Amino acid sequence: MALTQTQAQEIEELQTQTYPTRRTIAPGLEEILYEPFPVLDHGFVRVIDYMGDDSSIVQAARVSYGKGTKKVTEDRGLIHYLLRHAHTTPFEMCEIKFHIKLPIFVARDWIRHRTANVNEYSGRYSILDNEFYIPSEEVLGSQSTTNRQGRGDRLSPEQSQYIIKLLREDSERAYAHYEELLNEDSAGNIIDPKKDKLARELARINLSLNVYTQWYWKIDLHNLMHFLALRADAHAQYEIQVYANIMLDMLKRWVPFTYEAFMQYRKEGVRFSKNGLITLKKLLKGAPITQEESGMTKREWNEFSELLDLPL
Amino acid sequence: MALTQTQAQEIEELQTQTYPTRRTIAPGLEEILYEPFPVLDHGFVRVIDYMGDDSSIVQAARVSYGKGTKKVTEDRGLIHYLLRHAHTTPFEMCEIKFHIKLPIFVARDWIRHRTANVNEYSGRYSILDNEFYIPSEEVLGSQSTTNRQGRGDRLSPEQSQYIIKLLREDSERAYAHYEELLNEDSAGNIIDPKKDKLARELARINLSLNVYTQWYWKIDLHNLMHFLALRADAHAQYEIQVYANIMLDMLKRWVPFTYEAFMQYRKEGVRFSKNGLITLKKLLKGAPITQEESGMTKREWNEFSELLDLPL
Amino acid sequence: MALTQTQAQEIEELQTQTYPTRRTIAPGLEEILYEPFPVLDHGFVRVIDYMGDDSSIVQAARVSYGKGTKKVTEDRGLIHYLLRHAHTTPFEMCEIKFHIKLPIFVARDWIRHRTANVNEYSGRYSILDNEFYIPSEEVLGSQSTTNRQGRGDRLSPEQSQYIIKLLREDSERAYAHYEELLNEDSAGNIIDPKKDKLARELARINLSLNVYTQWYWKIDLHNLMHFLALRADAHAQYEIQVYANIMLDMLKRWVPFTYEAFMQYRKEGVRFSKNGLITLKKLLKGAPITQEESGMTKREWNEFSELLDLPL
Amino acid sequence: MALTQTQAQEIEELQTQTYPTRRTIAPGLEEILYEPFPVLDHGFVRVIDYMGDDSSIVQAARVSYGKGTKKVTEDRGLIHYLLRHAHTTPFEMCEIKFHIKLPIFVARDWIRHRTANVNEYSGRYSILDNEFYIPSEEVLGSQSTTNRQGRGDRLSPEQSQYIIKLLREDSERAYAHYEELLNEDSAGNIIDPKKDKLARELARINLSLNVYTQWYWKIDLHNLMHFLALRADAHAQYEIQVYANIMLDMLKRWVPFTYEAFMQYRKEGVRFSKNGLITLKKLLKGAPITQEESGMTKREWNEFSELLDLPL
Repeated sequence: MALTQTQAQEIEELQTQTYPTRRTIAPGLEEILYEPFPVLDHGFVRVIDYMGDDSSIVQAARVSYGKGTKKVTEDRGLIHYLLRHAHTTPFEMCEIKFHIKLPIFVARDWIRHRTANVNEYSGRYSILDNEFYIPSEEVLGSQSTTNRQGRGDRLSPEQSQYIIKLLREDSERAYAHYEELLNEDSAGNIIDPKKDKLARELARINLSLNVYTQWYWKIDLHNLMHFLALRADAHAQYEIQVYANIMLDMLKRWVPFTYEAFMQYRKEGVRFSKNGLITLKKLLKGAPITQEESGMTKREWNEFSELLDLPL
Repeated sequence: MALTQTQAQEIEELQTQTYPTRRTIAPGLEEILYEPFPVLDHGFVRVIDYMGDDSSIVQAARVSYGKGTKKVTEDRGLIHYLLRHAHTTPFEMCEIKFHIKLPIFVARDWIRHRTANVNEYSGRYSILDNEFYIPSEEVLGSQSTTNRQGRGDRLSPEQSQYIIKLLREDSERAYAHYEELLNEDSAGNIIDPKKDKLARELARINLSLNVYTQWYWKIDLHNLMHFLALRADAHAQYEIQVYANIMLDMLKRWVPFTYEAFMQYRKEGVRFSKNGLITLKKLLKGAPITQEESGMTKREWNEFSELLDLPL
Repeated sequence: MALTQTQAQEIEELQTQTYPTRRTIAPGLEEILYEPFPVLDHGFVRVIDYMGDDSSIVQAARVSYGKGTKKVTEDRGLIHYLLRHAHTTPFEMCEIKFHIKLPIFVARDWIRHRTANVNEYSGRYSILDNEFYIPSEEVLGSQSTTNRQGRGDRLSPEQSQYIIKLLREDSERAYAHYEELLNEDSAGNIIDPKKDKLARELARINLSLNVYTQWYWKIDLHNLMHFLALRADAHAQYEIQVYANIMLDMLKRWVPFTYEAFMQYRKEGVRFSKNGLITLKKLLKGAPITQEESGMTKREWNEFSELLDLPL
Repeated sequence: MALTQTQAQEIEELQTQTYPTRRTIAPGLEEILYEPFPVLDHGFVRVIDYMGDDSSIVQAARVSYGKGTKKVTEDRGLIHYLLRHAHTTPFEMCEIKFHIKLPIFVARDWIRHRTANVNEYSGRYSILDNEFYIPSEEVLGSQSTTNRQGRGDRLSPEQSQYIIKLLREDSERAYAHYEELLNEDSAGNIIDPKKDKLARELARINLSLNVYTQWYWKIDLHNLMHFLALRADAHAQYEIQVYANIMLDMLKRWVPFTYEAFMQYRKEGVRFSKNGLITLKKLLKGAPITQEESGMTKREWNEFSELLDLPL
């Protein structure tokens, strides 16, 4: 993520100016507004704008004329109560907008969260940057044998180095060919005056899925938590997890009470099935129970046991 | 719309405090933030919060690192271009939140705009205010004979006065019965100690559709314009039009360039069918054309002629 | 729910005709297609159309060229797996359309489920039927003292009978006034030739919230399950629960494997917070733990204990 | 689009079986159900399932107990009326589901239509086919000089052939490297037993944006028309237009009246701005008017003149 000097200056300008507003502000988020937080080798996340804070949730839940907030403990209690009982609408009353730079294969997973607004940098209209995601050795995992969509053990250093070399060469070639198709070098000069420029919308199709794109992405707090619950999770692909984890910190800065409740009731909470609940009750009464009796499948039984540190 | 003293004070408190923010601000909207604008006999609209302004649209369309704005004429031009070509996503990057007091029959039409967030005052949880919409004489129209869902001429003063009296009496009786069912008067005292309080969620069902409710309503700029295009329109029911018209002024204060483009290309623009376009071309060439030849129905033909001031 | 003879005939006609289709069919749902199932005193639910069945979920999850189904046990296993892991998108591939008659106060809660399609009978355009919901004695509960939005004990027979009488009289008067405002009786005749007809969109505002409306309501299977999880639940208002419970039976007829998985993992499953999980682990190890040590609030602790039949 | 023998058989099986249903059927669509229509070099569109037809729109608009249809001319008139006046909700009552094979760069534009349901073939879970989009000579356009996101004139045959060769070689190399990373050939055999298999979710990132993916895509009729209005349009990228044009034919088979109205009022209709309307009126009165007087920009003026065949 090497910002150009112009980009760095533009960001600094935004950061040094303040304006008076009558709106609610989130001091923790103001501190980091516009700041690019590096992710992967060339990506970043920046908060560009936001609306509301913890008090806005309380205010909307109470449909109040004023701030709607009471004692801090009461407000905190209300936020916990709302989240615990899945009263989600007051959380939709806060909104946040990010500027994100990310590889296209990550963007393709990300966009499946439909209740959000997106403006993506257009490869039909503009020329994409020469930046590709090359995984580091530490994250090059083998195909998992237990989880068809997961990553297993690390590869040997030799194989890893070979893979990285291959990815790097392919990316470099793809970009060189992209420029050749565009017939335009990075300085904007025509490469071969005897040739035409291929339309940008066509030239881009030869780039690989690890090329970086960027977008503005805006979402309400409720849907952001849904995104984070799924993506800041060990089952998500590593390359999207790292974005989600950074955004989790931003959530904490923005709405500390909501963050706390989110971690307590959603992120680190658990779900049990009907059979799981029945089994739990039996176990708590000291009654022995086998997998067969529980009605769970072998897989469910293992997950259940692991979750509860049971010696099964 | 008589605010209680507490409510007026709460609003004033919000209005007198300002905070420094690094976010974009919309000065025109800051001026009226939190201010209740009266609508109908007891309703109001207030802007509670917002995110972004005209520059945010430009910034998102350009996926920029900084403000993204250039010369004022260029920004204005871009906003006009985007709206003219229905490039709607950059307008989704701005968000606004209202507090609205409105009769339930208006709320029922309003809620059909689904791409918005709502927190309504709950009649299951709380006791509704003794406020009902009673139309004024000027707006009491007869059933239209040409438009099955419209209003025709004004009624006679006698009939109007009779209707208003009837509506008023029914509303008053409904509220008196509501309190009787709740077994609780407006001061919160039990009316008849020998009786139980009927559950609030049941007592409310006897209130009439003109009773006022209130909600927090949040929407992005693109969907707000869609709402205003449909509701600040002569075909909408008068009682929702008056809300939309006030919100149109708020739009102007918030995003003046977008407002201008919206009026030019959406609100006061027109649509012609394929047949309409063919007819237009013939007329512009001076060729005579009849309704039959145009392929339009009689009704379409009349609308077409009226729209263009044609002497047909 | 007294259907007119015409309505009954129209329904019968639909039920007696069959057509050959190459689409997947759900035999259990075909049996009851178009049939109105009575709800409350005048309401009903009818399935009007549907798309897909259990096999469609499997087919979409596998993005298959053919049916995509394998052995019955494998398909069932996949559906359970998907629902257990909240892989929700394959369930969005099935769709169902209902015709529902329901009181307006129920419709107002119902419509908050936004990811659905609605066509409501229009009181601006047409005249509403003379049907109002009058609760039966058995469901007239007092205001709950523990749950601000709930119902407590039944009222005394005397008070119940009084309330029912009051509701019935008010509804009858409201409808009589509605006809007077419309200046049109139920046979469509003008009541007073010397008076105008008030516009329908205005006359309706005097009707009470227990008047029946009707709508076509279409939703995908994933969002239907979300609706049912919230509304076929003891915390929902009784008058919406009864609709949801009937629709739960329809779900079973439509997609039996999905129904089974839904009951197992969602409807009768439970959620524990982070603190709940830690507490569970301690209890399972036989370690004593108090409410204070658990980090739960008193209320959470009580809910936790109740859920697990713990003697606390 | 070479189907494997198994795929062809699976499709044929679906096509030869019919079942009796009480639901509305669309005979024109039944005829082509499951049939893959080739698009581009390896892509296709197939209709997998549908719900409703023209009569369902009428039925929902009338909230009827039976079919809701009257005389054919009346039904057709109602559908035209609804579409002309943007009464969109009855069109949401029909639903259609497609199976589509398409290059990833097309999929990325397509997915921006958020009000739809998607199940995509997963490159994390499965191995992608060795199929890449290679444009034919006829569609290799140069970068447009007037429209930054458009295609201009065709390239010379030599340059075209060179580009095609380059794209083909890069695609072949990308796939060969993909298999090397997966350490698995097309028959599923390990290539090098001394090496690990890189996780699928990582191996895929080296494929180029012209590789084919496939998905199940489900959408309601209203949103489908919105998609087609934007994508079966000369301003859309050629490679998505070809899909949309085929789906336009499917629309015609499914809902012939709606198709007719869609073409008349949306697809081949036009929009004029406020200034455009004022100018039109002047022109129709025979009054001369210049671009400056019209209030339009030069660009708007040109578009206006072209649209109306005006000699300006």
